[in-house]
Amino acid sequence: MKELEQKILTDGAVYPGNILKVSNFLNHQLDADFLMKIGEEIARLFANDNITKIVTIEASGIAIAIAAAAHMHIPAVFAKKNQSTNIAGDVYTSMIYSYTHQNQYVAVIAKEFLSADDRVLIVDDFLARGNALRGLIDIVGQSGATVAGISTAIEKGFQGGGDALRAEGYRVESLAIVDSMTDDSVTFRAQ
Amino acid sequence: MKELEQKILTDGAVYPGNILKVSNFLNHQLDADFLMKIGEEIARLFANDNITKIVTIEASGIAIAIAAAAHMHIPAVFAKKNQSTNIAGDVYTSMIYSYTHQNQYVAVIAKEFLSADDRVLIVDDFLARGNALRGLIDIVGQSGATVAGISTAIEKGFQGGGDALRAEGYRVESLAIVDSMTDDSVTFRAQ
Repeated sequence: MKELEQKILTDGAVYPGNILKVSNFLNHQLDADFLMKIGEEIARLFANDNITKIVTIEASGIAIAIAAAAHMHIPAVFAKKNQSTNIAGDVYTSMIYSYTHQNQYVAVIAKEFLSADDRVLIVDDFLARGNALRGLIDIVGQSGATVAGISTAIEKGFQGGGDALRAEGYRVESLAIVDSMTDDSVTFRAQ
Repeated sequence: MKELEQKILTDGAVYPGNILKVSNFLNHQLDADFLMKIGEEIARLFANDNITKIVTIEASGIAIAIAAAAHMHIPAVFAKKNQSTNIAGDVYTSMIYSYTHQNQYVAVIAKEFLSADDRVLIVDDFLARGNALRGLIDIVGQSGATVAGISTAIEKGFQGGGDALRAEGYRVESLAIVDSMTDDSVTFRAQ
């Protein structure tokens, strides 16, 4: 999505430690009009895949999930992050390690919101090593539903998480793939 | 908003402890089409108020914030919840006590996303005692911006938070106000 690449170049910033800061439009301040365009593009990419439900994880995945779900006219479900493994109720859980925050948390989705009939599109704002997505894949699998695809706004291609998922057979559509970045340049993978 | 009242009656459930469960459309699973209608209604209510920015708090406020912001063609900012008061960077913070979770957390918004020129609409999914909203009002006040209004999807009128804010002069528009509820009935305030 050329428009997203352009926005990363104009509005994003690179910080030490391979941090790509896009908090002015994607994950702290939200450019609602632009997020709706991202949702429209995700809907276009998966228009022929009979998706029945979008799954994401709080917090910043929610904005993209709503934008895509609104264009696809289907529900979205967001996994909640819990610090404790001691969770009551009828839920699916998966333990996720966050490199960004250097901690573990448990992703939780109530069983009532996923069924074996569902064809799920997993979405998130970022894809780096892919740990959060793997937790969501695990949860979808527990429910018997099918992971029909994965879509993220920005993939850090050089961290390998997206390509590893592709090698396992998942269809992963990232709207912008950053193959390398330095303090003064960001290079995108041709798509 | 009659359609929201109807949805609460058909899809919601009342649990012991004055808990109104609407997790199948509002705060775990998200009915995207319906949330967009909620956003459209909020945009209609504040169409003449020159709102420049929507402020909410993660996680479930984000869905409504995006829906409203998309209809108003303005950005939304969500406050992040932090367990620690030891927060680096150029941020506004406010301590919030959660009755639901019986804990305290710090709401955080980067200073760059609020300015004294902003006319802010604060939105959230629920309004009960109003603690989260008061934290956001505090943060908006620190920035010098104006709180032009507050809008929530569901207000628990019997917990008094909304009326206290109205008594202080804030314009609070809740799309459904629950004045009382029992195991088998929910009574809405006429609006």
